[in-house]
Amino acid sequence: MVEAEIYITLKKDLADPQGITIKRALEALGYKNVEKVGMGKLIIINLNCDDKIEAEKQIRQMCERLLANPIIEDYSFKIK
Amino acid sequence: MVEAEIYITLKKDLADPQGITIKRALEALGYKNVEKVGMGKLIIINLNCDDKIEAEKQIRQMCERLLANPIIEDYSFKIK
Repeated sequence: MVEAEIYITLKKDLADPQGITIKRALEALGYKNVEKVGMGKLIIINLNCDDKIEAEKQIRQMCERLLANPIIEDYSFKIK
Repeated sequence: MVEAEIYITLKKDLADPQGITIKRALEALGYKNVEKVGMGKLIIINLNCDDKIEAEKQIRQMCERLLANPIIEDYSFKIK
C-alpha cells in the first residue's frame, strides 16, 4: 500500500479569484503583510501497490487523464 | 519573503463525497487498485516577513481564524 499526495495548482498568471478572496479576508483580519494567496487542490490517494515505481507511473497517468486540467493547472506529487 | 504551503484535509472518518466521486471515476478509467481517495485544499501564501518563527506564528493563526474549520478539518503547513 502506498499513499500519494497530489498537489494541483493553477498555472502562473491565471486569475485565481478564490486566492484573491482569501487575501482580502486575511487583510480584513489585520494581516497586512500578505503578498499573494494561491488556492489549489490536495488529493490523497491510497493505492494497493507495493512497487513505488509502478505507483508513480499510475499516479502520473491519473493526473494527466483525470485529476488535473493540463490547460490551466500544474500538478506535482509525492509517494510515501 | 517566505512562502507557506498549507494543507487542509477533512478529519478522519468524516464523509468525503468529492473523494468518493474521484475514486469512482478512477475505477471507471480502469484503476481497480485505488483503496481510498481524500480531497483537501492546498493554500499557498507569500508573506512579507523575514523571520520564519514569526511567519510560522502568523500562518498558524490564519489557519485557526480563517483558513481551516477546526470542527471538521485538520491543517498542517510548511514554511519555505
